Amino acid sequence: MNYTEMTVAQASAEYAQVKARYEELSALGLKLNMARGRPDAAQIALVADILDVMTSETPYMVDGMDVRTYGESNGISPARELFAELLGCRPEECFIGGNASLTLMYDTISKAFTHGLLHSEKPWSKLDKVKFLCPVPGYDRHFKITETFGCEMISVPMTPNGPDMDVVEELVRDPEVKGMWCVPKYSNPDGIVYSDETVRRIAAMKPAAPDFLLMWDNAYCVHEFDGAFVEFPDIIALCREAGNPDMVIEFASTSKITLPGAGISVMACSVDNLAYLTKLMNVQMISYDKVNQLRHALYLKNKEHTLEVMKRHASVMLPKFQCVLETLEREIAPRGIATWQKPKGGYFVSVNTLPGLAKRTLALCKQAGVVMTAAGATYPYGIDPNDSNIRIAPSLPPVAELEKAMEIFCVCMRMAALEQKLA
Amino acid sequence: MNYTEMTVAQASAEYAQVKARYEELSALGLKLNMARGRPDAAQIALVADILDVMTSETPYMVDGMDVRTYGESNGISPARELFAELLGCRPEECFIGGNASLTLMYDTISKAFTHGLLHSEKPWSKLDKVKFLCPVPGYDRHFKITETFGCEMISVPMTPNGPDMDVVEELVRDPEVKGMWCVPKYSNPDGIVYSDETVRRIAAMKPAAPDFLLMWDNAYCVHEFDGAFVEFPDIIALCREAGNPDMVIEFASTSKITLPGAGISVMACSVDNLAYLTKLMNVQMISYDKVNQLRHALYLKNKEHTLEVMKRHASVMLPKFQCVLETLEREIAPRGIATWQKPKGGYFVSVNTLPGLAKRTLALCKQAGVVMTAAGATYPYGIDPNDSNIRIAPSLPPVAELEKAMEIFCVCMRMAALEQKLA
Repeated sequence: MNYTEMTVAQASAEYAQVKARYEELSALGLKLNMARGRPDAAQIALVADILDVMTSETPYMVDGMDVRTYGESNGISPARELFAELLGCRPEECFIGGNASLTLMYDTISKAFTHGLLHSEKPWSKLDKVKFLCPVPGYDRHFKITETFGCEMISVPMTPNGPDMDVVEELVRDPEVKGMWCVPKYSNPDGIVYSDETVRRIAAMKPAAPDFLLMWDNAYCVHEFDGAFVEFPDIIALCREAGNPDMVIEFASTSKITLPGAGISVMACSVDNLAYLTKLMNVQMISYDKVNQLRHALYLKNKEHTLEVMKRHASVMLPKFQCVLETLEREIAPRGIATWQKPKGGYFVSVNTLPGLAKRTLALCKQAGVVMTAAGATYPYGIDPNDSNIRIAPSLPPVAELEKAMEIFCVCMRMAALEQKLA
Repeated sequence: MNYTEMTVAQASAEYAQVKARYEELSALGLKLNMARGRPDAAQIALVADILDVMTSETPYMVDGMDVRTYGESNGISPARELFAELLGCRPEECFIGGNASLTLMYDTISKAFTHGLLHSEKPWSKLDKVKFLCPVPGYDRHFKITETFGCEMISVPMTPNGPDMDVVEELVRDPEVKGMWCVPKYSNPDGIVYSDETVRRIAAMKPAAPDFLLMWDNAYCVHEFDGAFVEFPDIIALCREAGNPDMVIEFASTSKITLPGAGISVMACSVDNLAYLTKLMNVQMISYDKVNQLRHALYLKNKEHTLEVMKRHASVMLPKFQCVLETLEREIAPRGIATWQKPKGGYFVSVNTLPGLAKRTLALCKQAGVVMTAAGATYPYGIDPNDSNIRIAPSLPPVAELEKAMEIFCVCMRMAALEQKLA
C-alpha cells in the first residue's frame, strides 16, 4: 500500500512490522558496502591478463622513441589514437595522463586559478568570485575540487535529458560563472544520457565569461552494462562548430575498463587549448608513464576490442543492477516513497526519496551494517536541500551480498518514511 | 700554454690553429646531444627485466588489499619501506607518487600557493611577494617551477660544501623568503655532496617565515658512479631534532634506477606534514599506480639490492665521466680558461668558464652539431650573470660519440676564450 495514503493506524501497524524485520536483519551483524563505484574482484579478474602483454621482450620503440625513457609529454600515439576512437575526437586533441582522470581535472582547475586558461584575462585566484555550475545530483569528487578552490557552486537541476538548459543558459550570462561540471553519458549518479538536444545546446552556449570551462567528464563513455553500445556526440567538434572551440575539456580513463588503480587517462580539447595547457604542464611533468600507455594500447587494441572487453564487464554488472532495480520496484515502488531512473550504463542507481528521508535511511543502514555513499554527497558542499538523494553503488558486492544489502536498504527507507509520517 | 698569460701574437696564432680544427670538426656534420641527464639505452637494457616481475600470476594482495584497484593514497607499504631505507627515513614519512618526483614538487609548491602549507597563515597566492632561495648553479626544472608561480628567486652561491650558509642564514631572516631548493647529494649540476656541517646548519636554520619550505630533492641519493655508496644524513630526523620538524619535504624517484619514464617517486616529510598534504592531495587523486609500486618493490627488493643495480648503472656511467673529466683536464686545464668539480655521482659535470664565454662556447658547439643544456639554464630566469656556467650531461651518448662531442666542446671553449682576448 502507498504510504502517502495510509491512515495513522495503518502506518503504526506497518511500522511495527518493518521495525521487527529491521531488527532481525541488524542482528545478522552484516558488513556490506555500497559506498563507491568500485569494480568487483570478478571484473578485475576478467582483465588481469593486461599485466602479461608488456614484458622485456615487447618492442618498445613507438613514434621513433623508446617508451621506457623520458619525453613526449602528450603521450604515445597508439594511446592517443585509442582514446580518440573511443571519444570520437581526433588523436591530436588527446593528452594522455596517469592512472586518474581526477588528477587531470584537478590540475586543470588548479591551473585556471594559478595561471588562468587560454582565454582568461587573469588567473582565477585574482578574481573576487568564481562561480561554477553543478548539475545535481552529481559527482562528489567533482564538487570537492571546485570547493577546495573556493568556488561558489550553483546547483542546476537535472532532467531526464541532462541539465535543465533553460536554467543553464540563464546562469551563464553572469560573467562570474566560469564553468560547469558534466558527466554526459550515464551521469553520476542518475545514469542519465544527455539528449542530443541538450548536448547541442551546451555546445552552443554563449557564456559571458570568455574563459568559461566546460568540464566534460565522459567517465562512462563505453560503459553500457545493459544492451548495445550507444553512440554519443563528440563535444569537441560540436563546440568547434558552434564557435566555442576552446570552451570544453573532456576527460576519460580506463579505470573501469582495465585495472581501477593502474589505468591510463585522457584529457581531450582543441589543439589550441592543448598547446596552451601542455606548455603549463611541461613545468609539472615530462610525460606520464608511457610503458603503461603502450601496455593499454596493446591490450585494448581499438574501439571494437574495447567494446568486447566492456561486454565482459557488463556480464558481471548487469545482474547487480537488475537486483537493485528489481528490489526497488518490488519493495519501494508500491509504497510511493521514492523515484529513480533505470540506467543502462554507468556505475550507479540514484534514488530520490520523499523529502527528509535520505539521512535517516542511511543512518539506519549504517546501524544494520550497510555502508552507502553519505547522504548529501551528490550535492555541492555535501548539502542536499531536500535530504532526498541517495546514490547506490552496486558494483562491488557479489549479488548474494547485494540482495541482502538492498533488502536492508529498502527496509530502512520504509522505516524512515513511517517514522516521518508518525512523528 | 695558459691563455690568460698569452701575448696578442701568441693568441692570434693559437686562434688560427684552433679555428682550423673547429672547421674540420664542423665539416663532419655530427649530431651529438649532451643536453639532458638522460640514461643511456645501455642502462635501460640493464633494468629492462623489471617488466617481467609483475604478471597476472603475481600475488596482488598487499596490506590486505588488491594493488590493482582503487585506494591507499599514500602508497603500498613495500614501496614506502623501500624508499625509507634508501633515504634513511621512516616508512610512515613516505608518500609514493607516480613516475615523476617533479610532479610531486610542482604539486607541493602549487598547493602552497592555492591552499598554504601546514604552518601558513594564508595561501601564498594571497601574499604580495614570495621569495625563494636558489643555490646556483642549480637545476633548471626547479627554477621553472618557482618561476611559473611568480616567486622572486634569489641566487645563493654554491661552495664545495653546499650552499653558502652564511648567506642563507642571513637571507632567511626575511619573512618573505619562503623556501629553498636543494639537491643535497651530487648536486645538479656541480655534483657536490653537501658536507655534514652544511646539512646540520640547514636543518637548524631559524627562518622568519613559519611556513618556510625546504625543497630537498635527493634525486641522486644512491647514484654513485665512481666508488662505494656514500652514506648521507636523514634530513627529516635532523630537522626534527633541530626543532624544525615540518620544515622539510624530501623527494626522490627511481627514474635513474629503473626505467626513466616509468618509475615511481616519493615525497617524504614529517607525519604531521604528510597528514596535512595527504588531505589536500585526496581531492586530486585516489592513489598513484600501485601495480607499478609493487613491480618496483619486487624488482628492487631493498637497499642492498638497489645498490647492486646502481653498480650496473655505474659501469655504464663511469667511462663517460672519465672521458669528460680527462678531456677537460687535458684540453682546458692547461689553458686556464675554466674550472670544474670532479663528481663521483649524479649525472652532470658543471664547467665554469672565465666570465663571458658560456653563450659563445655553446653557440659554436651548436653550429658544429653538439647540443648542450642552454647557457644560463642553471640560473634562475635562465640568466647567468657571469655567462660562465655550462652543464655537461654525458650520460646519453655512447663513449665514442662523447669523445668527439667533448673534443668539439673544448675546441669551442678555446675559440671563445681567444675571440674574447683578441676582441
